[in-house]
Amino acid sequence: MIETDIIIIGAGPVGLFAIFEAGLLKLKCHLIDSLPQAGGQCSEIYPKKPIYDIPGFPSVLAGDLVDNLMEQARPFKPGFTLGEAAEKIEKQEDGSFIVTTSKGTQHHAPIVMIAGGLGVFEPRKPPVENLADYEDKGVEYIIKDPEFYRGKRCVIAGGGDSALDWSIFLAEKNIASEVALVHRRSSFRGHLDSVQKVMDLAEAGKIKLITEAEVVGVAGEGKVENVTIKHQKQGEIVMDTDHFIPLFGLKPSLGPIADWGLEIEKNAIKVDTRDYSTNIEGIYAIGDVNTYEGKLKLILCGFHEGTIALQSAFARIHPDKKNVLKYTTVNGVQGF
Amino acid sequence: MIETDIIIIGAGPVGLFAIFEAGLLKLKCHLIDSLPQAGGQCSEIYPKKPIYDIPGFPSVLAGDLVDNLMEQARPFKPGFTLGEAAEKIEKQEDGSFIVTTSKGTQHHAPIVMIAGGLGVFEPRKPPVENLADYEDKGVEYIIKDPEFYRGKRCVIAGGGDSALDWSIFLAEKNIASEVALVHRRSSFRGHLDSVQKVMDLAEAGKIKLITEAEVVGVAGEGKVENVTIKHQKQGEIVMDTDHFIPLFGLKPSLGPIADWGLEIEKNAIKVDTRDYSTNIEGIYAIGDVNTYEGKLKLILCGFHEGTIALQSAFARIHPDKKNVLKYTTVNGVQGF
Ligand SMILES: Cc1cc2nc3c(=O)[nH]c(=O)nc-3n(C[C@H](O)[C@H](O)[C@H](O)COP(=O)(O)OP(=O)(O)OC[C@H]3O[C@@H](n4cnc5c(N)ncnc54)[C@H](O)[C@@H]3O)c2cc1C
Ligand SMILES: Cc1cc2nc3c(=O)[nH]c(=O)nc-3n(C[C@H](O)[C@H](O)[C@H](O)COP(=O)(O)OP(=O)(O)OC[C@H]3O[C@@H](n4cnc5c(N)ncnc54)[C@H](O)[C@@H]3O)c2cc1C
Repeated sequence: MIETDIIIIGAGPVGLFAIFEAGLLKLKCHLIDSLPQAGGQCSEIYPKKPIYDIPGFPSVLAGDLVDNLMEQARPFKPGFTLGEAAEKIEKQEDGSFIVTTSKGTQHHAPIVMIAGGLGVFEPRKPPVENLADYEDKGVEYIIKDPEFYRGKRCVIAGGGDSALDWSIFLAEKNIASEVALVHRRSSFRGHLDSVQKVMDLAEAGKIKLITEAEVVGVAGEGKVENVTIKHQKQGEIVMDTDHFIPLFGLKPSLGPIADWGLEIEKNAIKVDTRDYSTNIEGIYAIGDVNTYEGKLKLILCGFHEGTIALQSAFARIHPDKKNVLKYTTVNGVQGF
Repeated sequence: MIETDIIIIGAGPVGLFAIFEAGLLKLKCHLIDSLPQAGGQCSEIYPKKPIYDIPGFPSVLAGDLVDNLMEQARPFKPGFTLGEAAEKIEKQEDGSFIVTTSKGTQHHAPIVMIAGGLGVFEPRKPPVENLADYEDKGVEYIIKDPEFYRGKRCVIAGGGDSALDWSIFLAEKNIASEVALVHRRSSFRGHLDSVQKVMDLAEAGKIKLITEAEVVGVAGEGKVENVTIKHQKQGEIVMDTDHFIPLFGLKPSLGPIADWGLEIEKNAIKVDTRDYSTNIEGIYAIGDVNTYEGKLKLILCGFHEGTIALQSAFARIHPDKKNVLKYTTVNGVQGF
C-alpha cells in the first residue's frame, strides 16, 4: 500500500503543478496515470508543438512545458504509478481513500485530487482487420517524434489537420523517404493553407495523394510491409510501405472516473468554484476534468484551480493549523 | 480622448497578461499606471529577485517575468499611459466609461478592468526633517539597480530583510565603497542567516554596524553629503555619505480606486468569481486588487482571473457573437 498525503489521478500539466503547490504546504503527492509517461495531452498528443498562452512564455513547446513542470516539482519528491489506470476509489471509515489501479496497485491518502483531463484517450481506429496485430510494429496512431520516420516509407490516412500537417512535415523536410496521404473524400477538413501546401507537394512529386480511397488491409511478416488501398473508382491496389499511420484524431472518454459517484455534467466533474471540491468530501477535481459555470479548458486555469484546491485540502488535513500564505520569493522553496 | 476596447488600470503582471488574452479575442487594450514603467510590484519592488511559483518556471527573476509578459503581449499592440494615476471614472449613458488620470489624460472604452494590485505604493519614510528635499538626490527608498551604488558610500537604515539583504549585497560584492547599516534596536527582524552574515561582514570590517541608533538628519548642498545619527547611548555623530537609503518597507493604499463606488472589503474590490465582475456592470477587477472567498494574492491566480473576466467582457461587447474557445497551439496568435 502506497501512503501519501494527496493522491493525484492524472499526471498532465495540471496534476504536475499541483505537486509543487502541495509541496509549499508541506504535503506529499503520489500521481497515477494510465499513460506510461507524465505530461497528459501535452506529452501524448502534441509534445513538439508550441503553446502560446502559458503566461510568461511567448511560446513554449508542450513537451518543454512538461519538462519544466517536472523540474519545478522535483524538490517535493513526488511518487508515480505510471501505465496504470485508477479504477476504483473506496472511502474508508476515517474519511480517507484507497485508490486501486488496473494492475492492482493500492494507494492510501486523506485527499484525492482528480486531474484526469479529458479522461483516457483512445485514437479513432479505422476498421481494418488485424490492425491491432501491427500496433507498434509499423502502425502508429500518433506521431510523437518525426525523426522516427527518417528514411522510411509512410502511408498516412486522414483528412484533418493532423494528417495534412504531418504529411507536409515529413515530406517537406525530407524526413520520410516516401509519403502517401490517403483520404476518403476528395476535399479535406483542414486549414486552407495546409490543403494548398499538400497540393503543391503532390504536384512536386513529394507527396503521393490518394483521395476517394481507404486503407482496407495491412500485411507483413512481424511488421508492416504493405497496405491495401481501396479506391472508390479504380478498385484495390497494394502499396509497399514501412509505416501505416492512421490520423483520425483521438476520442476522449472519462473512463472509470465516471463510475465513482461523482456529479458528472458535460462529460466532466461538477465542482464548487470556492475550492474546486466535488460532491464527495475529500475529493477535488482540477484542470480539464472539471466543469463549472464559465469553465475554460485551458492549462493556465488548471494551475489556478489546483492552487486554490490545495489550500482547502490543507485545511482538511490540518484542521487546527492556520496556513498563512508566504511568497516563494521571500521564503524560497524548501524541498522534502 | 484615447479610444480602446478595454481600459486596464494597472500594468502589473496581471494587467499585462490580460492584454494577451484580450488580443486572442480580438479586443484591444490600453493600460494606465501611476508608475513610470510596466510590471507593478515585480518591477518596482523586487525586479532582481527570483519567483519560484510561476507555473513552468522553476525560477524566474521578477523583472524577467515582466519582460516575457511584455513580449507575449506585443503582437496585440497595447497602448500605455504611464506615470499617471487613474483618478476618475465616469459611466456614460451608453454604459461605456471615461477614465481620467492625474494629468488629465482621458480614455474611453466599453469595459474597464482594474488590475491595480495593492494600489499605490508609498515607502514608509523615517521622520527626518527636509528628507523630501533630498529624494532622488541621494535619498532612495527602494534599491532598483545595485550598480547605481558602485563606488559610492551608502548609509542604509532598517531592521528587516530588505535592509539586511541589501547591506550584504552591496558590501559582499564590493559594489559600494562603504556600507553603514543603522538600526534602532539591538536585534534584527530578518532571517537568521542574513543576520549572521551581517555580523560576519561587520567583523570583517566590510559593514559598519550601528545599532540602537537612528538617522535624525540629512544635509548637503543640492545632494546628500552627510547624515546625522543619534545613538541611544553615545549621542549624535555626523557621518559623510553619498546615499541615505531608508528601507522600512512599503505601505500600499488603494488610492483613488476606493472612491469609485465599488464594493470594498479588506482594502480590496469584491468580485463575483463567475467572471470577476464588480458591483458596477462593465467594470472587472483582477489580480491582487480583488477579493473573494478563498482569494490568494498570487500572480498565477491573477492570470486565471483575467482570462475568465475577458470572456465575460467579450460577451458584453459582442452580445450576439458566440465565442468558441480555440487553442493557441492550433490557431496560432494573430496580432493586430
Ligand atoms: C492539439 C491540442 C492543442 C492544445 N493547445 C492548447 C493551448 O494552446 N493552450 C492551452 O491552455 N491548452 C491547450 N490544449 C489543452 C491542454 O492540453 C489541456 O487543457 C491540458 O492538457 C489539461 O491538463 P490536465 O492536466 O487537466 O489534463 P490532461 O493533460 O488531459 O492529463 C490528464 C491525464 O490523466 C490521465 N487519466 C485520466 N483518467 C485516468 C485514470 N482513471 N487513471 C489514471 N490516469 C488517468 C490521462 O491519461 C492523462 O495523462 C490543447 C490540447 C490539444 C489536444
Ligand atoms: C517582495 C515580494 C515578493 C513576492 N513574491 C511572490 C511570489 O513568489 N509569487 C507570487 O505569486 N507573488 C509574489 N508576490 C506578489 C506579487 O508580486 C503580486 O501578486 C503581483 O504583483 C500582483 O500583480 P497585479 O498585476 O495584480 O498587481 P501589481 O503588481 O500590484 O500592479 C498593480 C499596478 O497598478 C498600479 N495602480 C494601482 N492603482 C492605480 C491607479 N489608480 N492608477 C494607475 N495605476 C494604478 C500600480 O502602480 C501597480 O503598478 C510578491 C510580492 C512582493 C512585494
